[in-house]
Amino acid sequence: VNRDYQTIALEQDGWSVRVLDQTLLPHLFEYRILRDCDDSVTAIRDMWVRGAPLIGATAAYGVALAMRADPSDSFFETAYEKLFSARPTAVNLRWALDQMRSCLMDKPPSGREALAYARAAEIASEDDTLCSAIGRHGAELIAAAYRRNPERPVNILTHCNAGALATCGMGTATAPVYTAHGDGIPVHVWVDETRPRNQGAALTAWELGRAGVPHTLIADNTGGHLMQHGEVDLCIVGSDRTTAAGDVCNKIGTYLKALAAHDNGVPFYAALPSTTIDWTIDDGVADIPIEKRHGDELAVVSGLTDTGQVASIRLPPVDTPVGNYAFDVTPARLVTGIITERGVTKATKPALQEVFADLSKQD
Amino acid sequence: VNRDYQTIALEQDGWSVRVLDQTLLPHLFEYRILRDCDDSVTAIRDMWVRGAPLIGATAAYGVALAMRADPSDSFFETAYEKLFSARPTAVNLRWALDQMRSCLMDKPPSGREALAYARAAEIASEDDTLCSAIGRHGAELIAAAYRRNPERPVNILTHCNAGALATCGMGTATAPVYTAHGDGIPVHVWVDETRPRNQGAALTAWELGRAGVPHTLIADNTGGHLMQHGEVDLCIVGSDRTTAAGDVCNKIGTYLKALAAHDNGVPFYAALPSTTIDWTIDDGVADIPIEKRHGDELAVVSGLTDTGQVASIRLPPVDTPVGNYAFDVTPARLVTGIITERGVTKATKPALQEVFADLSKQD
Repeated sequence: VNRDYQTIALEQDGWSVRVLDQTLLPHLFEYRILRDCDDSVTAIRDMWVRGAPLIGATAAYGVALAMRADPSDSFFETAYEKLFSARPTAVNLRWALDQMRSCLMDKPPSGREALAYARAAEIASEDDTLCSAIGRHGAELIAAAYRRNPERPVNILTHCNAGALATCGMGTATAPVYTAHGDGIPVHVWVDETRPRNQGAALTAWELGRAGVPHTLIADNTGGHLMQHGEVDLCIVGSDRTTAAGDVCNKIGTYLKALAAHDNGVPFYAALPSTTIDWTIDDGVADIPIEKRHGDELAVVSGLTDTGQVASIRLPPVDTPVGNYAFDVTPARLVTGIITERGVTKATKPALQEVFADLSKQD
Repeated sequence: VNRDYQTIALEQDGWSVRVLDQTLLPHLFEYRILRDCDDSVTAIRDMWVRGAPLIGATAAYGVALAMRADPSDSFFETAYEKLFSARPTAVNLRWALDQMRSCLMDKPPSGREALAYARAAEIASEDDTLCSAIGRHGAELIAAAYRRNPERPVNILTHCNAGALATCGMGTATAPVYTAHGDGIPVHVWVDETRPRNQGAALTAWELGRAGVPHTLIADNTGGHLMQHGEVDLCIVGSDRTTAAGDVCNKIGTYLKALAAHDNGVPFYAALPSTTIDWTIDDGVADIPIEKRHGDELAVVSGLTDTGQVASIRLPPVDTPVGNYAFDVTPARLVTGIITERGVTKATKPALQEVFADLSKQD
């Protein structure tokens, strides 16, 4: 992947942490330096970083920065609580913090700083490895589509940003695209704008453009029309949470694209690391609560003015009530397959259990 | 309907024409006065007025203003051409202009001004009557839904603006809602934002709010999730063009909502005057060309700044390619029924031919 930026990295000084401030994208490109645990809390809370894997890595480095300041048990616990409270529902955040706890708490304080930096780097590196494995498996699907119709680029539709910007690697849903593109397979990505928060327009379009991957931004309303006219070869989306039976919870609107794919015989894949699978539930529509967020996320949008300033404006009338649902659930029956670090599996309980026998029996 | 504005009306002076400038909605409410044919051309071309029926009425009044200035044949022909060229693909525009031609051209010039004003008023009034008839028939569906579940308001999802603002009456898709609301049936409307041009946020939310009809603005991505959870009792959309077999061409994204309605057993209706039916084609997906428009309609949005100014901003990176498709086609198999001025019919060729025997045989 031709990537000339990093979502998170250690600075030259060997201890401070540099993150890309994603709230400023796509119009401004600025890194921010995290120098203590509170900076890391701010980075997560104010969404300079977003995407479950990247939030986890940022929290891990937050603990490292805390241990550098004071490696005591009590300081660790304070850091844990602060970091954990920075975002309400991020599963990966707790996972990363618990990893840091097991790594550090039975060790003497004097060694904790070095151990914490090493484990944080490992968490970031493991995520990079997961992304690459997903990319390799998913790229085979894209290569197969190209072999079936080598007359034109493979058209891939994606929703939201499950991209490099959400991870410490090449992303999840975007990983197959980057890998195929790197293999020389002609690809073209239809990028859903992804209202209400516009992650498609602000993040996915930006990162694909930066990587030189051909793409076109479309309104979220458009995918069905394109599929009716044969303009989509496959869909690849990410997932925030996937049930043991293969129901895929992802950014609101994913379900509508899956329905259109099903209606037009277009394969629909979710790309995700196995850490995203919740083995405790089967029925996603019934059992996954969907977060309702503040209406201003839909009503107020931010972008570039004629004079090159970044500004926010309100779209609907000031007194219009707004309903803002963050995610929806795509039933497994609409999902052609799940692309994980271990390969492409059917979106069924037996298929997932077979591939992840070691993980699915944990609960 | 509690409507305290008019999309188009004759001024007190008895000859100049007042239109609501819809480009300024929802943040500014301003009428503009049309004093000659060129003003009418501007109103149509610059989209102060939009919606097929309202464009037709504006063109008719444009001819009246022309006849007031000069009732000659040659001036009529010039006015016809100017008005017809104001919007490229408005079927109703040609219809209204042809109505004016048949009304005027075989009459002596001295009587044409009065005849033209009378026919223009009639065209507006006929549209109002059509809307009311659609409203009356559609309201029965809403009343029936309320009888089935009187524990809560009837939740109706709509897409784009087929509202009072698009017509000289109470709209097409909104007419059943206004009528039911006027009948005292509790209703609540889910208003799709309708990207790329935000007609839901800018127009439908505005007009429902102004009329006191309970509603909630949602992202276009949201309808499927709401239907999965029983929060939508029926969908009612408008149509720009409907085939003889009942395929419904409407604002892009309509098809996705119809798929979700079908998947969840939610009735899906299109409300339209029979003038919208194109008896010459059956297969909408194959035979209706879909207009591609400039990408800036998606990329650049307009709204209210913190300081109360109306401003425009660009959402994606400046060099992001944008695909902007204006409409899509919902196959008849996904349409529960068509609400017309003559009642609710099935979306099939035999059913439509039976109700419109007089019209369907024209071609």
